[in-house]
Amino acid sequence: MTGFQKKQIVKKSVDSDRWYTDVILKSEMADYSPVKGCMIIRPNGYAVWEIIQNYLDKKFKEIGVQNAYFPLFIPNSFLKKEKEHVEGFSPQMAVVTIAGGEKLAEPLVVRPTSETIMYDSYSRWIESWRDLPLLLNIWNNVVRWEKRTYLFLRTTEFLWQEGHTAHATFEDADNFARKILEIYRVFDEELLAIPVVIGRKSQSEKFPGAAITYSLESLMPDGKVIQMGTSHHLGDNFARAFNIQYLDKKGERQYVWQTSWAETTRVIGALIMAHGDDQGLVLPPRIAPVQVIIIPISQNSAIARFCDQLKTELEEVGIRVKIDDREEKTVGWKFNEWELKGVPVRIEVGEKEIKSGELTVFRRDKNEKLNIKNENRHLPDKIIKLLDEIQKEMFLKQKKFTEENTHTVNSYEEFKKIMSTTRGFIKAMWCEDALCEKKIKDETKASTRVLPLETKDEKGKCIYCGKQAIHRWLFAQAY
Amino acid sequence: MTGFQKKQIVKKSVDSDRWYTDVILKSEMADYSPVKGCMIIRPNGYAVWEIIQNYLDKKFKEIGVQNAYFPLFIPNSFLKKEKEHVEGFSPQMAVVTIAGGEKLAEPLVVRPTSETIMYDSYSRWIESWRDLPLLLNIWNNVVRWEKRTYLFLRTTEFLWQEGHTAHATFEDADNFARKILEIYRVFDEELLAIPVVIGRKSQSEKFPGAAITYSLESLMPDGKVIQMGTSHHLGDNFARAFNIQYLDKKGERQYVWQTSWAETTRVIGALIMAHGDDQGLVLPPRIAPVQVIIIPISQNSAIARFCDQLKTELEEVGIRVKIDDREEKTVGWKFNEWELKGVPVRIEVGEKEIKSGELTVFRRDKNEKLNIKNENRHLPDKIIKLLDEIQKEMFLKQKKFTEENTHTVNSYEEFKKIMSTTRGFIKAMWCEDALCEKKIKDETKASTRVLPLETKDEKGKCIYCGKQAIHRWLFAQAY
Repeated sequence: MTGFQKKQIVKKSVDSDRWYTDVILKSEMADYSPVKGCMIIRPNGYAVWEIIQNYLDKKFKEIGVQNAYFPLFIPNSFLKKEKEHVEGFSPQMAVVTIAGGEKLAEPLVVRPTSETIMYDSYSRWIESWRDLPLLLNIWNNVVRWEKRTYLFLRTTEFLWQEGHTAHATFEDADNFARKILEIYRVFDEELLAIPVVIGRKSQSEKFPGAAITYSLESLMPDGKVIQMGTSHHLGDNFARAFNIQYLDKKGERQYVWQTSWAETTRVIGALIMAHGDDQGLVLPPRIAPVQVIIIPISQNSAIARFCDQLKTELEEVGIRVKIDDREEKTVGWKFNEWELKGVPVRIEVGEKEIKSGELTVFRRDKNEKLNIKNENRHLPDKIIKLLDEIQKEMFLKQKKFTEENTHTVNSYEEFKKIMSTTRGFIKAMWCEDALCEKKIKDETKASTRVLPLETKDEKGKCIYCGKQAIHRWLFAQAY
Repeated sequence: MTGFQKKQIVKKSVDSDRWYTDVILKSEMADYSPVKGCMIIRPNGYAVWEIIQNYLDKKFKEIGVQNAYFPLFIPNSFLKKEKEHVEGFSPQMAVVTIAGGEKLAEPLVVRPTSETIMYDSYSRWIESWRDLPLLLNIWNNVVRWEKRTYLFLRTTEFLWQEGHTAHATFEDADNFARKILEIYRVFDEELLAIPVVIGRKSQSEKFPGAAITYSLESLMPDGKVIQMGTSHHLGDNFARAFNIQYLDKKGERQYVWQTSWAETTRVIGALIMAHGDDQGLVLPPRIAPVQVIIIPISQNSAIARFCDQLKTELEEVGIRVKIDDREEKTVGWKFNEWELKGVPVRIEVGEKEIKSGELTVFRRDKNEKLNIKNENRHLPDKIIKLLDEIQKEMFLKQKKFTEENTHTVNSYEEFKKIMSTTRGFIKAMWCEDALCEKKIKDETKASTRVLPLETKDEKGKCIYCGKQAIHRWLFAQAY
């Protein structure tokens, strides 16, 4: 795409599926690959992932987590050691059967997740209470074979971090799983500007092998929901399967209690879908690789000097800023291009701006032009303030949308009606019988998302079967 | 290992192979994995890799390289497109034949390197001279099936960065390949404190598919050599295989010229081998995750306060510092442990030290104790100076060793004698016939490492066949 023609994308309101793909491809966040179900993350998308990595990595290290690396391949026999785990992942496995020109005696599974390969080592490394807690994290790639795929949201290979810890007690593990959940919540809400509901998964929706799965769920503009991260309390399930024991202070052998937790490139899909508009991406400032784009309206040396000076001033206060002074592109093309790429703030610099000392600033989230006075070198502070304001307002907009589309429902008729029209979150009583859960899903495409953490017991009846129920669960159609 | 018993390692001088493995396992840099040929990088080793990543990533970005991600799997047909490339990698491929419970129509190769999968995209992304240069890098894992493996130095799966660029001219590509080579040289010499010889590979030793392979080679204490990184000028070989063309300024179609280059976790093996001693690891300060370990000689609140204060002061000047105040370990055990882990500087803090204001400082590279006065808060500056001095002296020690073990040799008898005793680098004339090269290797285990970049033409005779030769090549036995 090298000409002057603006890139066209279909309107979000017209066809949100096509809009989503269009935006990703044309903003050069990602591309399809020749390998079915696998995607290419292009520099614009990867730069977002790097900001995510830097942020989370720092938070994990602050609470004592260390990074490590474990092999890509898992012997088939390892996966079989935890029954639920192997049942959950078997249908999605990619298997290496030939290596170095020979057929392998034992096939190797490309990791769908690393519990089994890691916990084999944990059983050798952990001997006493002094070795606990063991807090490791890996940044890697995993493979889960998917029949239908969707850029970022569901791909056969994806990037993530997977944390794996071992603790002396059930409570220690639970506290840690919740501590991670809180890190994820702050990340989702304060960096991605996406409000989440946090809670625990039902038995049928939990991670295969977990005792409790905590999850963060967020509502997208089309009324469907994306899971924004999970933190699992594994109980002692894997400790028993892999014989991970420690000597306690009394010298007695005890099984450890474990957690695992992950945040994936999938959240980039949520980021795009939640905030984007008909012009393309809209990135919240804290996650935007370029926060401010400076565009010279005409080309001369005074303007060029002014732009360079402005860039330096903004960089000095920590703003990620770029100048687009390419001669082969028109100003109009550049406006369109950087709007498509979702850069939060554009500063236009022309003769008029230099003379008047008043800059034309475009705010991407509202597609609004502002005039900001560039006096006494206060501009950088004003831009920081503007970026903060954008970040905050983008979050509040999503929060309002989520609240407006969260329905407390007491009849199955109403449930079905909402799910066949506007969708959104539904809070409804459920008896916690997997059969009702399955029938609701078959009939409405809505699954239980979570039992929100702060839910209080209620006396009520299951929305499906009418039997006694004590909890109001959150339902939605999910990506 | 939780008791008070010191960890024993075999002496480097007695059995350097066993020493190497012993040190890696007992310093907890890495561990064997249950998957043949794959290793686990433990937190102590991964922290070194993170320092390497941060350093190189910054250097790449400074020259305009962007990060991206491409799929783990490569269709078999892609690898076949460049003839030398597929011949080079075929014997080492791991192949996925089953996925999602079904036999795949086309088997997928787990990437041994990503030229083919990336350049397929390059052919779609590059249209005009405006799209050049295209400068991408990936941090990922690759798999090359190995029969005999060695921790860090040769493993079936390893971590690396692979850079892949496309340029308008042969010269642009060559300049870029050499620019990367220089980044690697500075990295090897200034961070790892390992001197390197840089040059180009012979036809038989170059990367399969490259026009020119530039390489960095370093001599280990046992007289064998480790390749410390490579930067390939790919010519237009892949451009022709994948039809990567651009429209030049005159509107004519031209093939691009390409480079690829990589630095791997293998250099951590070189780091361990080059500097380690009978006590264990010796890490150069710039690459050490912990640069200073503070050990309280006895436990009381005055000492604890002093240690905390000291830690804060050192952190304020950017030193990576830790206190080992574990009550369940003896002081002697701690000394041994942190020496084994190669921490460059140990500061011992006891009653005596607090009273006298003179600290006992242990310098790991020389295993020497120094007394440093802690007056007027100048200690942090003194420690910075000490760390710089250690870094420099570690490099100079290796440099001297390399020089002393580089032999200019003019007879094959002498060549054979050196290679069967002390080994080291040999500079010898070679006619550049692959048959002589092969026979030398078969008879002495020494291969051509590089033709050093600054080599001048000479008139001479091939050390093996006696025919005319114009270049003095560098030979050595390689890991």
